[in-house]
Amino acid sequence: MEILLEKLKRLEKLNLQMFGKDFLLTWEKSIDDLKATLLVTEILKEMHKNNYSLKIFESGLGISIFRDQSTRTRFSFASACNFLGLSVQDFDEKKSQIAHGETVRETANMISFLAEVIGIRDDIFIGEGDKYQRNVAQAVQFGFENKILHQRPTVINLQSDIDHPTQSMSDLAKIADHFGGLSNLQGKKIVMSWAYSPSYGKPLSVAQGMIGLLSRFGAEVVLAHPDGYELLPEVIELAKNQAKESGGSFQITNDMKEAFTDADVVCPKSWASFKVMEQRRDLLHKNDEKGLNELEQICLQENAQHLDWECTEEMMNLTNNALYMHPLPADISGVNCDRGEVSQTVFDKNILHTYSQASFKPFVIAAMIFLSKIDNPVAKLEELLRNKIYRKK
Amino acid sequence: MEILLEKLKRLEKLNLQMFGKDFLLTWEKSIDDLKATLLVTEILKEMHKNNYSLKIFESGLGISIFRDQSTRTRFSFASACNFLGLSVQDFDEKKSQIAHGETVRETANMISFLAEVIGIRDDIFIGEGDKYQRNVAQAVQFGFENKILHQRPTVINLQSDIDHPTQSMSDLAKIADHFGGLSNLQGKKIVMSWAYSPSYGKPLSVAQGMIGLLSRFGAEVVLAHPDGYELLPEVIELAKNQAKESGGSFQITNDMKEAFTDADVVCPKSWASFKVMEQRRDLLHKNDEKGLNELEQICLQENAQHLDWECTEEMMNLTNNALYMHPLPADISGVNCDRGEVSQTVFDKNILHTYSQASFKPFVIAAMIFLSKIDNPVAKLEELLRNKIYRKK
Amino acid sequence: MEILLEKLKRLEKLNLQMFGKDFLLTWEKSIDDLKATLLVTEILKEMHKNNYSLKIFESGLGISIFRDQSTRTRFSFASACNFLGLSVQDFDEKKSQIAHGETVRETANMISFLAEVIGIRDDIFIGEGDKYQRNVAQAVQFGFENKILHQRPTVINLQSDIDHPTQSMSDLAKIADHFGGLSNLQGKKIVMSWAYSPSYGKPLSVAQGMIGLLSRFGAEVVLAHPDGYELLPEVIELAKNQAKESGGSFQITNDMKEAFTDADVVCPKSWASFKVMEQRRDLLHKNDEKGLNELEQICLQENAQHLDWECTEEMMNLTNNALYMHPLPADISGVNCDRGEVSQTVFDKNILHTYSQASFKPFVIAAMIFLSKIDNPVAKLEELLRNKIYRKK
Repeated sequence: MEILLEKLKRLEKLNLQMFGKDFLLTWEKSIDDLKATLLVTEILKEMHKNNYSLKIFESGLGISIFRDQSTRTRFSFASACNFLGLSVQDFDEKKSQIAHGETVRETANMISFLAEVIGIRDDIFIGEGDKYQRNVAQAVQFGFENKILHQRPTVINLQSDIDHPTQSMSDLAKIADHFGGLSNLQGKKIVMSWAYSPSYGKPLSVAQGMIGLLSRFGAEVVLAHPDGYELLPEVIELAKNQAKESGGSFQITNDMKEAFTDADVVCPKSWASFKVMEQRRDLLHKNDEKGLNELEQICLQENAQHLDWECTEEMMNLTNNALYMHPLPADISGVNCDRGEVSQTVFDKNILHTYSQASFKPFVIAAMIFLSKIDNPVAKLEELLRNKIYRKK
Repeated sequence: MEILLEKLKRLEKLNLQMFGKDFLLTWEKSIDDLKATLLVTEILKEMHKNNYSLKIFESGLGISIFRDQSTRTRFSFASACNFLGLSVQDFDEKKSQIAHGETVRETANMISFLAEVIGIRDDIFIGEGDKYQRNVAQAVQFGFENKILHQRPTVINLQSDIDHPTQSMSDLAKIADHFGGLSNLQGKKIVMSWAYSPSYGKPLSVAQGMIGLLSRFGAEVVLAHPDGYELLPEVIELAKNQAKESGGSFQITNDMKEAFTDADVVCPKSWASFKVMEQRRDLLHKNDEKGLNELEQICLQENAQHLDWECTEEMMNLTNNALYMHPLPADISGVNCDRGEVSQTVFDKNILHTYSQASFKPFVIAAMIFLSKIDNPVAKLEELLRNKIYRKK
Repeated sequence: MEILLEKLKRLEKLNLQMFGKDFLLTWEKSIDDLKATLLVTEILKEMHKNNYSLKIFESGLGISIFRDQSTRTRFSFASACNFLGLSVQDFDEKKSQIAHGETVRETANMISFLAEVIGIRDDIFIGEGDKYQRNVAQAVQFGFENKILHQRPTVINLQSDIDHPTQSMSDLAKIADHFGGLSNLQGKKIVMSWAYSPSYGKPLSVAQGMIGLLSRFGAEVVLAHPDGYELLPEVIELAKNQAKESGGSFQITNDMKEAFTDADVVCPKSWASFKVMEQRRDLLHKNDEKGLNELEQICLQENAQHLDWECTEEMMNLTNNALYMHPLPADISGVNCDRGEVSQTVFDKNILHTYSQASFKPFVIAAMIFLSKIDNPVAKLEELLRNKIYRKK
């Protein structure tokens, strides 16, 4: 309880600009906004643990649009909405009239008359996911300004082609928790490393989200991948600049061992290169199954040249007793694949770390909604703490 | 607030017969019931705008059965249920045991033990959708009378082969709003016109719902379509009689220009003829894909003879500065098709009208549920206005 | 109301061990736990009928995992969750990342951060359904003990390969209601009989659940089936022992008429033999469509040798005016099949019995959740009765 009050005090000192705003890319947010999101995440998680109800809505919809499969983000979004009092309504394009040629602008308004938040995952088509989210945001802004919508639903990026802020903010929360606070990130060596996977086409946005966020807190961020697995150049550029500004550093290496040496945090995870994702996008648009199969074969062969990019005990021994992170699900050698991103022993040793990393996500999303919907979050949280209403009565 | 009280006074004077009743066809409802539905729609919409909670249920299910794709009606139903405190549970026949040969009578009861409302869209099979809805209604009536169900779920037609009352009531709400009240419909020329579309098999029930409802308020209702696109004869008959009784008129023309001349409201929208829908139904039942493809080709060729049935600027210039309406999504020439129901300029000019037209639907559905569930709606609304509970706390 | 207080007094006397426990097999529960589940089922049903709200949760998720089609159990689970204040979130494996090789242990935790209950139907693969449920239960126990989960979601068996406790408890509730109390089961002849069906592969767990539960209350339980339609040997063994302990009896016969003679309750329903289910499981795992079709043909031919295993008037006349039961949907001769489990006249005469049998299920599930979540159920129920909050306000 005292910890909560202390966090509220810190929250009070921040210069917030999140009310009424979407959450699309972390690098569009000020440091204070990110700190506030983190603080509110921690507060809401603690309140949930202590059986507080956080129902700030009597009614209202939280709409989810998943253009890709999802388990954890789907349930995190549903959990966050439920915790705040919103009902989730999934917008399933297959059951909709999208096929009738409806425009995004129109659909966005048609589903939003009673909506408070729209969460969107759109990570398959590189160069398109972020744009789609912005189209939705503009559309509901238009509807709101023209008094079609009584409230402006907040758009939350549940993973785009560029960023995955609900994941990277969960990662940040985990790292802050592990090292006893955000300020302790200063000087820590944080490694986002490519790792071998027997599948292809995994989105780049987890890696991009990580380097785009972690480079803002003074850490020594290292991106490691084999030649050919480059991320979006603009995110690389951004990470460099942010690292400089924050008093940290940002480096790229093609040597996994070098990256792991003395690392404090490692996140070894597979992704495709953006060049592959571009080809894949074009083939997907053409419904070119043969082309897709050929691309997959080429990519898998390329991947297979980097079987040694596996997070093994040997690799972990190079680190400074590093925190192992993974957004899950991981490709675990000998468990769900022959050779994968991580050895079974490393994964099993760190399983609780990965679970607790994931456990922040529902509260990260709840915090994003809360800060976008509540004008004076400190006052509201104080009110909720004072008039404790039990989650389980 | 004063406007709300004035509306409540008007509501008080109506002779209501909606408590415990289904809403299947507008023409089964008295004028007072329709007026009450409209008034409560307006009241609930205003209350929503002013952050009133309208949770009249602590718990209970709102069941949706969509036998066809849907965006706006699906979300309108979900929104209405949510606003009133009900949780939506979609009855997805693919995930059910319908395939095991379960009867409608049985299913209807099995899903209804805690249900307060069942919304059904069944518009694909002409001659069947309305019957299905009545079967469900009879089944839950049987269950309720025999004390199997503790409450009788209200059945609401979310579009059948005959009528689309949640759409037509939204249209009525928009028109009343546009002209400053229902009484101002007297003498207005309201045109429901067929329009060209590069698709086929669109349901007739939007057009039927419009002429079946608008003909009851003294308007001069005109139905326009090319030869061969006739609506159900019984609805035509009904519209004629209702128009006469209400002091208005009902006319059919095969000339779009004639129809548009001096019109106050135009709703140009494509539909199939009921003869085509009958053939299509039989082919669908036989799973005759070849036959369906052939029928589609014939129909598209027929449609293509009426490319000039497009709502263009030229057409609009014939009108008395008419309100352009469309239930959306529209086939917009040059936007989602080469040639369609409406030109881009006309659509874009009127986009806010079409959005606001759609914005009534969640509240129309909420009003239908409210009036069917609450014995004394005036007293309940007064109570809700007095003890304001905030939707967003 | 007096009846409710009397039931509460009886509940108070029971030695409960359900708090924090899963509900997987009835035979893992003590007689007192089963009696308590039945009492709370009756209490909650009566409270629902009398417009009590039973919202013991302000927020929280009820997760459903259906690995087979379901209507009544799906809606019963959704209804129970809704009644208690939980929002249902369906875990649809097709929309998840299961395909990415995620383990059950991981998934179970990832979806459970705000979950209070997980209901699982997994009845297709013999030898696997129950195991899957136990894996989920162990996983969330692991997460809870390691402080990953703030609460331990209760796992409820919504039908496994072994037992179907929400069904058998509903059956028990119906029988107890019919005969005026559980104690009146003593000496009643209760027949679970195989019946002919023109389909194959129906799960054994309904029959197993029935004999595994009813054999504990002093009844004379008879299992009847043609040679070759044996149930799991361990459940047969269990039923024998339980019957002996309870002062009743358990017999198996291959003669339907013998079974029906002087019966007080009959439940004629089709199932496959476990040998067939084992072959089917192996073929399903191999995706061997040809093999599955061949197996189906063999089974249907075998079934067809027992067309006379139909519950006809003639059969019913042999009984002691027996209560006819069926979990629904039934194969009704001349209604949804040519020849089936039951004749139309018998089914129609007993339709209200089958509906009321089904009507207990939502409250059985609610009772299971309630008793697992509420430490002192008597005190909580008294509180809810005292501070009546209306379900429909």
